[in-house]
Amino acid sequence: MNRLRIAFVPGDPGGIGPELTVKVLSSPPPDVDILLVGDEKVVTRGEQTAGARIDRTPVAGDSLSAAWPAHPHPLLFLQQNGASPEEIAPGSATAAGGRASLRELECAVDLAARGIVDGVCFAPLNKQAMKLGGMDAQDELHHLAGFLGFSGCLSEINITDAGVWTSRVTSHVPLRRVPDLIDREKIKASARLLSRALREYGVPSPQIAVAALNPHGGDGGNFGREEIDIIAPAVKELREEGMRAAGPYPADTLFRRVLSENIHGVVTMYHDQGQIALKLQGFERGVSVLGGLPVAVATPAHGTAYDIAGRNAAFTGATEAALQVVIRMAAQKRERARGQEQHEN
Amino acid sequence: MNRLRIAFVPGDPGGIGPELTVKVLSSPPPDVDILLVGDEKVVTRGEQTAGARIDRTPVAGDSLSAAWPAHPHPLLFLQQNGASPEEIAPGSATAAGGRASLRELECAVDLAARGIVDGVCFAPLNKQAMKLGGMDAQDELHHLAGFLGFSGCLSEINITDAGVWTSRVTSHVPLRRVPDLIDREKIKASARLLSRALREYGVPSPQIAVAALNPHGGDGGNFGREEIDIIAPAVKELREEGMRAAGPYPADTLFRRVLSENIHGVVTMYHDQGQIALKLQGFERGVSVLGGLPVAVATPAHGTAYDIAGRNAAFTGATEAALQVVIRMAAQKRERARGQEQHEN
Repeated sequence: MNRLRIAFVPGDPGGIGPELTVKVLSSPPPDVDILLVGDEKVVTRGEQTAGARIDRTPVAGDSLSAAWPAHPHPLLFLQQNGASPEEIAPGSATAAGGRASLRELECAVDLAARGIVDGVCFAPLNKQAMKLGGMDAQDELHHLAGFLGFSGCLSEINITDAGVWTSRVTSHVPLRRVPDLIDREKIKASARLLSRALREYGVPSPQIAVAALNPHGGDGGNFGREEIDIIAPAVKELREEGMRAAGPYPADTLFRRVLSENIHGVVTMYHDQGQIALKLQGFERGVSVLGGLPVAVATPAHGTAYDIAGRNAAFTGATEAALQVVIRMAAQKRERARGQEQHEN
Repeated sequence: MNRLRIAFVPGDPGGIGPELTVKVLSSPPPDVDILLVGDEKVVTRGEQTAGARIDRTPVAGDSLSAAWPAHPHPLLFLQQNGASPEEIAPGSATAAGGRASLRELECAVDLAARGIVDGVCFAPLNKQAMKLGGMDAQDELHHLAGFLGFSGCLSEINITDAGVWTSRVTSHVPLRRVPDLIDREKIKASARLLSRALREYGVPSPQIAVAALNPHGGDGGNFGREEIDIIAPAVKELREEGMRAAGPYPADTLFRRVLSENIHGVVTMYHDQGQIALKLQGFERGVSVLGGLPVAVATPAHGTAYDIAGRNAAFTGATEAALQVVIRMAAQKRERARGQEQHEN
């Protein structure tokens, strides 16, 4: 059995991604093989910023499977022709940078879908740059679903420094629309997606807490009835289908409860409900998983930080954490496949 | 000039208030005089629970002004006839307990309004008990405003462990109603109330941050227009009237910004927006100020904790913090009065 193979993508070339890539891959994690999918001149610029080097062996895309050597394992580098240097100066969102980073991500995800790599980790992308660069979807998650022809339920999953996974029933919509967008089926779909992602990460029977919508969980109907009419019935149905789900819990005490009890995942009703807690608990090492996709993909939860791009000031904690999440998801997937093979033999 | 005089009320007799009262007042803060306003048998029960004693001198209400001795300063005790012991067993909300705690609080606030004490600190009350005991208002803040015949703007202000003060434009209402309840005048009133409370606490020119309503602050109108149409104009008008106000800031990063920048107060748009952050940042020492009232009143932010009442398990941090807040507000009030006198002489 060969070692785990993880594709790594430097993200938006104008942000801190190239620097993070160099800092993390100049001492890559042991026991996995890394394939860096990027543009030589962007990686070189990252090296200049970081004052470090990635020890890499160029490889052609069509010879990849044959190129993974047995031992030792150099880091392989798959060159992608990106934008010209003057088009992607550090510090801003550009169409060229967005286009290049999208193509690199697609390349890596395609390799994962074909089983040539086991998972994908990417440094921060920028939505504005990707939209300038031709992305029609609302974000990279939906873009990749379209690219893969995948039509199942999707949700970005955020992982806090404390290791709590959160999904959300609504996301980038006005707060005004949130109550009407919440229904029993969406809550159940979000909980199932979160529970499956946690199982794929190696938590056999995840405990899922579902947040309330209204203050004090509606206070028995005094401040809103969504808990009684929608959320509690959804939780009940999730339990009936075997999930260890509980709630609805008032949002303001839920995240303290999560820290003191053995809860693996939290289903939130709207963007800020989870994000306020997540960003307070620890933004430095926060990770986002592209939940729902048939391949393991994770990225640091922070953004491109254009204001500090090119200054060797980026903190690598979240990128290292994202890489570790992908490695663990990929390892679990191999385990399951092996279990399946043994079962069939 | 006599020393500062603070009235202390034990709160709901069935909760952890009596125990907290004894723990805090068995070693009262130096340099202030304390007047305990409560029921002898409830205080005695608190002493039994806490395994400590309050060294107190009984005093009659009509002889209070004459009774504050010069030196040393024993703690004075103003007996209130509360409920019978069997009516107020520890561990639950009762009509008798709610009625007694309301009367004690009214007595203390009346003394403050008449200038006999400089401020009031009370241990946790219980809304359900007070409603059973005859309170018609939504909470003790509005009840006391009615009691004092005060008709100005009111808002509970919460203070985090980190010392950040927060007010909110809407409170105990369904999330569905929040967007329609937010208008420019309400935002301005909430910011002014917060700014005034901070000045009364001794911050000469408070920096106030105003939260956005929608995710990512509406993303330039893509996820809601309240920031553009309502919140930003309110902030502009606050600045025009001289307040150091800024915003709207996306809520999920605002509380991290507050921790790293010199921001004194945050105006939140809805209950959980502030409460998720507040309770994560530290519930143990959180304080609530009854904002808007003409007298200085503060209380620990936590509740009666009926589940641990009578067990000597209550943590005094928030009660001590609340007492310190009242002392500082009272001291500042004295300072201002003295400045005013000098100005007039």
